[in-house]
Amino acid sequence: MIRPRAVVVVTGSELVRGDRRDLNGPFLAGELVRRGIEPARILIVGDREDELAGALGEGLRADLCVVSGGLGPTHDDRTVELVARAAGAGLRVDEDLHRQIGDISRAFAQRMNRPYVDFEQGVRKQATIPEGAVSLGLAGTAPGLVLEAGEGVVVVLPGPPGELQRLWREAVEAEPVRRVFARAQPPDVRLLRFFGASESAVAKALADAGGDGDGVEATICARDFEIHVDMYVQPGAEARADELVSGLAAPLERYLFSRDDRRVEELALDLCRARGLTLATAESCTGGMVAERLTSVPGSSQVFLGGIVAYADEVKAAELGVSPELLERHGAVSAETAAAMAAGARQRLGADVAIAVTGIAGPGGGSEEKPVGLVYLHAEGPFGSRSADFVFPGDREGIRRRAAITALHLVRRLLAHRRDEPA
Amino acid sequence: MIRPRAVVVVTGSELVRGDRRDLNGPFLAGELVRRGIEPARILIVGDREDELAGALGEGLRADLCVVSGGLGPTHDDRTVELVARAAGAGLRVDEDLHRQIGDISRAFAQRMNRPYVDFEQGVRKQATIPEGAVSLGLAGTAPGLVLEAGEGVVVVLPGPPGELQRLWREAVEAEPVRRVFARAQPPDVRLLRFFGASESAVAKALADAGGDGDGVEATICARDFEIHVDMYVQPGAEARADELVSGLAAPLERYLFSRDDRRVEELALDLCRARGLTLATAESCTGGMVAERLTSVPGSSQVFLGGIVAYADEVKAAELGVSPELLERHGAVSAETAAAMAAGARQRLGADVAIAVTGIAGPGGGSEEKPVGLVYLHAEGPFGSRSADFVFPGDREGIRRRAAITALHLVRRLLAHRRDEPA
Repeated sequence: MIRPRAVVVVTGSELVRGDRRDLNGPFLAGELVRRGIEPARILIVGDREDELAGALGEGLRADLCVVSGGLGPTHDDRTVELVARAAGAGLRVDEDLHRQIGDISRAFAQRMNRPYVDFEQGVRKQATIPEGAVSLGLAGTAPGLVLEAGEGVVVVLPGPPGELQRLWREAVEAEPVRRVFARAQPPDVRLLRFFGASESAVAKALADAGGDGDGVEATICARDFEIHVDMYVQPGAEARADELVSGLAAPLERYLFSRDDRRVEELALDLCRARGLTLATAESCTGGMVAERLTSVPGSSQVFLGGIVAYADEVKAAELGVSPELLERHGAVSAETAAAMAAGARQRLGADVAIAVTGIAGPGGGSEEKPVGLVYLHAEGPFGSRSADFVFPGDREGIRRRAAITALHLVRRLLAHRRDEPA
Repeated sequence: MIRPRAVVVVTGSELVRGDRRDLNGPFLAGELVRRGIEPARILIVGDREDELAGALGEGLRADLCVVSGGLGPTHDDRTVELVARAAGAGLRVDEDLHRQIGDISRAFAQRMNRPYVDFEQGVRKQATIPEGAVSLGLAGTAPGLVLEAGEGVVVVLPGPPGELQRLWREAVEAEPVRRVFARAQPPDVRLLRFFGASESAVAKALADAGGDGDGVEATICARDFEIHVDMYVQPGAEARADELVSGLAAPLERYLFSRDDRRVEELALDLCRARGLTLATAESCTGGMVAERLTSVPGSSQVFLGGIVAYADEVKAAELGVSPELLERHGAVSAETAAAMAAGARQRLGADVAIAVTGIAGPGGGSEEKPVGLVYLHAEGPFGSRSADFVFPGDREGIRRRAAITALHLVRRLLAHRRDEPA
């Protein structure tokens, strides 16, 4: 079975100029991979006619082309017109759409106290679709569309990510799209997540286990200090995949922290919840990032009580009870201060477990003895504690992110391991 | 003058599969726009030979092609080989590079207690470059490269964003790249940043002022609750650009908060610094996001003292002095609680100004009376206070982000306006 090939075309001047990062390409690519379709390329272009026409021409040579953006009411939104041209289809005003979009625009004009005549041209433009195209419903006043073109199928979706995702759910139910999906076999996926191992150690373990191929495609991806291995397994290659998973897991077992894609903040919260423990944070250089990550998880309020962002030393003393003598003797960036911050957070916030972070995120504030990137972490619970220190590479943002992720892993390790195990 | 046209080719299986968002395309596109080069498209492909070869073939037809990724030591990193093929150039082992990469790998092998022979093939592979290519220096063991190919120039850079950005700074100094830049005219850029205005109101004001064109290209971009207008002004069109700027600024003056691209957290910190005021936060539903944004700014420690993430009601009471009676009477999500949190943060953390956020981020916890998305904000300073409430649309992440950004704008407005001005 040959995997159907897809091209994603994303249009938007602000995207091709680098003013904004595209979210739709990765979303659509992930959706396609999950269904066994190969996203051969993601093409980001502006709204210049020749560039967009070229991209759509390429897209229409694939089995499935998904287009994002360029559906607005103004003249520089050319996607529909150029899709029709690339597909060799004429354009027609869809009467149903014209009525629906007209109603919405009339209500809007009234609310804004503007004459409807200002909108008429835009309404007609947005109700104009390629001959043979089927509407997926409206996003605002723009219809999503499906069109069969030659050997392939093209899906046209609006640019705002929320709207795109909503109309994509309609697109996957459309008959022409279902026919493309029917020719594909969704792959089996195996996930392995490592923390503390190097990317090259993981790559070597994979090579030693025979490497990928033979129906298993593996990607190794370093994200901050985590290494993510995703294996896409074709039907019939399950045994080979099991071998590779064992080959990776055995030499790297102490670094393997998950076989699913829960983030470390979810794992830390789940471990607390399973043990009936509450959690608090005390942060200096990460400035609230650890708390922000924990509270990004729905339901975190069952476990997470709160945190102190103790940026100034006075706040470390007043809110976390770190003694001025200790701060004076060891400095705010020290193992002793990290331990005192964790103890203070547990006591002040009444939490069972606390994680503390103090360090130098830069660019200023470093010294020979305490360089930029130096970070002390301390996790304390009712049954013991763990501490760690690092000199993280990277810029301010990278240092803070790595410190926050490592702090969450320290909580995970404090809770996942037995007392008698080494850190 | 015709603007030179550039194509950015980004390679990486994890990117084309949607497992990770590409950062290099937007970075490079922004760099090119700033120099007056038109980034015609950003092309994201995996490491499949035919797909990557096709993308590079396209790239080499542009005046400048910048390629990111696929420079590793293993067989599936094919960028150099395929660039050479697309350029019709042979491959050669560069003796200097071979020695340098060999030295690095020998030291690494020793540190890892592995025989150097394991690395030999990879070293030779990474020292192999197209005939006529010039090295930009190493990122780890991978060289960045510049090559003239036909009418165009191709720059090959490593995938990790930090390394790519470092070698890009070398690439812009390379002679063939400078020659492309010399044919371009960096555009004049005008920035306008609005908060609280709708995208359509900004679009209408732009249209009423005559719209873009005639040497001015404008992008209007909604980011959370901010509307960003960037105008790229060709030489000779400065007067037209001034007209458009006035046309936009006049009707929307009360929403216009900046004419440069400082983020709102920078503006808030700058306003505090200019007045000699210190700042603190008290957060519930945003869980530390406001503090995290403030501390992302280098030097924020001169102004920002710290914050309390008061997720549990007990923490609101104990750490911010919000009275249990008030919490009981009005609820944790109320204007009264927001005001008490701000007052508590000022007092407890000894700050001049405090901003408080409390709300329901969802997906659970909403009711008919207090729906998901309801957020109360309160900013208090020595000379007065401002409060606001919203029902933000979107998911948990979107509600939290909008709440955090709006909180920072509330601080900005508290400090930017005179006492006698309305909120």
